[in-house]
Amino acid sequence: MAALVTLLTDFGMADGYVGAMKGVMYSLCPGLTIVDLSHEIAAHDIRAGALVLASAALTFPPGTVHLAVVDPGVGGPRRGLLVESGGHSFVGPDNGLLSLAANAPRRIYTLDRPEYFRRPLSTTFHGRDMFAPVAAHRAAGKGASELASETGSMTELEVARARLEDSGGFIEGEVVSADRFGNLITNIPAAMLGVGWENALVKIKGAVISGVVSAYADGSRGHLLALLSSSGFLEIAAAEASALEVLGLSEPRGCEVTVQLLRST
Amino acid sequence: MAALVTLLTDFGMADGYVGAMKGVMYSLCPGLTIVDLSHEIAAHDIRAGALVLASAALTFPPGTVHLAVVDPGVGGPRRGLLVESGGHSFVGPDNGLLSLAANAPRRIYTLDRPEYFRRPLSTTFHGRDMFAPVAAHRAAGKGASELASETGSMTELEVARARLEDSGGFIEGEVVSADRFGNLITNIPAAMLGVGWENALVKIKGAVISGVVSAYADGSRGHLLALLSSSGFLEIAAAEASALEVLGLSEPRGCEVTVQLLRST
Amino acid sequence: MAALVTLLTDFGMADGYVGAMKGVMYSLCPGLTIVDLSHEIAAHDIRAGALVLASAALTFPPGTVHLAVVDPGVGGPRRGLLVESGGHSFVGPDNGLLSLAANAPRRIYTLDRPEYFRRPLSTTFHGRDMFAPVAAHRAAGKGASELASETGSMTELEVARARLEDSGGFIEGEVVSADRFGNLITNIPAAMLGVGWENALVKIKGAVISGVVSAYADGSRGHLLALLSSSGFLEIAAAEASALEVLGLSEPRGCEVTVQLLRST
Repeated sequence: MAALVTLLTDFGMADGYVGAMKGVMYSLCPGLTIVDLSHEIAAHDIRAGALVLASAALTFPPGTVHLAVVDPGVGGPRRGLLVESGGHSFVGPDNGLLSLAANAPRRIYTLDRPEYFRRPLSTTFHGRDMFAPVAAHRAAGKGASELASETGSMTELEVARARLEDSGGFIEGEVVSADRFGNLITNIPAAMLGVGWENALVKIKGAVISGVVSAYADGSRGHLLALLSSSGFLEIAAAEASALEVLGLSEPRGCEVTVQLLRST
Repeated sequence: MAALVTLLTDFGMADGYVGAMKGVMYSLCPGLTIVDLSHEIAAHDIRAGALVLASAALTFPPGTVHLAVVDPGVGGPRRGLLVESGGHSFVGPDNGLLSLAANAPRRIYTLDRPEYFRRPLSTTFHGRDMFAPVAAHRAAGKGASELASETGSMTELEVARARLEDSGGFIEGEVVSADRFGNLITNIPAAMLGVGWENALVKIKGAVISGVVSAYADGSRGHLLALLSSSGFLEIAAAEASALEVLGLSEPRGCEVTVQLLRST
Repeated sequence: MAALVTLLTDFGMADGYVGAMKGVMYSLCPGLTIVDLSHEIAAHDIRAGALVLASAALTFPPGTVHLAVVDPGVGGPRRGLLVESGGHSFVGPDNGLLSLAANAPRRIYTLDRPEYFRRPLSTTFHGRDMFAPVAAHRAAGKGASELASETGSMTELEVARARLEDSGGFIEGEVVSADRFGNLITNIPAAMLGVGWENALVKIKGAVISGVVSAYADGSRGHLLALLSSSGFLEIAAAEASALEVLGLSEPRGCEVTVQLLRST
């Protein structure tokens, strides 16, 4: 079976950077299959990259190597990492980018063996010169402890967690991301809504959404609706429209969302 | 030979949706080759997706599985389909998206066997949970009638056909799509122009184009020209410029195009 | 080992053109691996395409076929080319697009054998009908001299070279391209800076940058900095910002850059 490497960057596709990384990997591991996850992460947006990686990586089979580069600190003191988690390997900078996808239990390795880097190692493009070669070697079957040195910890992205009020009737959360359709994904897990979730009142930016539905089609055109997203969290959308636009949000991330639970009695 | 799956969506590449679909397929069919057709279909634009699919799918070899997801009705009553046509397989929602590429004669199957879906089946992301698994199973060689239940019909996109006046001297048609270069593709088949096509007068939005040429280079810079597109239809372009901009069209689709045929005598 | 074809175009991914080229190649060479380099080259921007191709192509292993289509002259008198250089093959129009990547020594072939083209050959889409089939045949192992006729020369892009003043204390160069991050790549080779490069004064658009650093992180936020790019040329960037925006440049290409060398004494 061909070795799989997924590739996620904030490089866009208008420049030659992504192509150069692919070439380096095919040169080191000819039978490789490289899968583009995204190159449209906003420039230097580590959190967005981490979320996209976390939403897609674990649908791949064990043995997959996930190479991710959103790396504003390239050339500075930040380390390069190889992380092993759940049968998957993750390669990229130690800035939190890998921390949401590579769940515990995990083993963390620092990339400190120049014999596995491209020479000369540039100070501005570790994607091509450090991360791509290490990912290709890993995909070709070289062991993690051969490629890098085990270490104790890595940079973790802080994640705001939704809070269920003690009475159990009220949830405080926030928007984590918006997608291309203007749907807003929150940090409120479906499970936290509990029994009677379909009767909840959801509030965001002064708007009140009455009830949680199953599908985008369950709303009237242009109106906000709340539903359970495909990633298992509460989502705010608008039927045949963009919730982002309906709410007039420019930066949705961090926007407060509250849920009032109305248990059927 | 590796199984081929092409992938077309309106998901864009900034989110994790396309990656998740790819991961599901590689997990089910490890030796697979997945080919990106487009993820830049405008959100919910079923017609644009259907046209892109129709223009590209049949250049692939028989045996290819074409997975297409532009699916505003996800979670609602619309069915999921597997369509077999000309040795190709098409998987996607029953909303017309597949209808231009999957030509008659064809066999149509409804996706009604949850054992081939991802569990739990979400109500908002059938691309990942229903269509990707079925496409992967089909690519791995599972038969259509094993994966789904044959049915009689599917939703067809209406296509406006160009009309040749009885006298044979006049054609009424319209613009079907504009491409990245601002070229306008019409619904007027090259064959309808007949002998003497190079002398035709083409009218659009008050502009009159005298004669149909062979190549973009056959015009003077910035001026409109008419030619025969690579898909076999009359096309309106502008030499080293965008016909869309020259004509000042905001929504080109449906814009009337007429042709006056001037037979050489 | 699977044959590799890289693909670079200015077609974007919203239309069916790229998909059609891929289908043609998979039909002719089923075991192929097609690698997207870029489809986001600005429409008709031959120079940008040539630079991206040159920056990525040679990271691939020898034996790779590089198919590139930025082709405003399609259907006119410009020839189609197959160029062999350094164990790599390049296929595309003879308009300079291939000239930066396919270095001398090289052998140049004109595509003049219709038996290797798709029939009927359109006048507007040689990417699908001429270049893709030839690239697929080459990837499948057919020899260059079988596919095309050797010829003496090809269109070369003119490249402005940086000039080192006779005294050795002053360099005149220019900006060659800007990337997604707003970094400006110049035509001044790192080697031209010589010993003491870290003390150089770099001038662009009235701004003076004192010293050349190693990494983006070596500057203070929003301020310009000069460093050595990953392609071996002087680069002008801004820490956590876009040099393009800081300098207020709309068209960076050709913008003059001078360097005053301050040798340590």
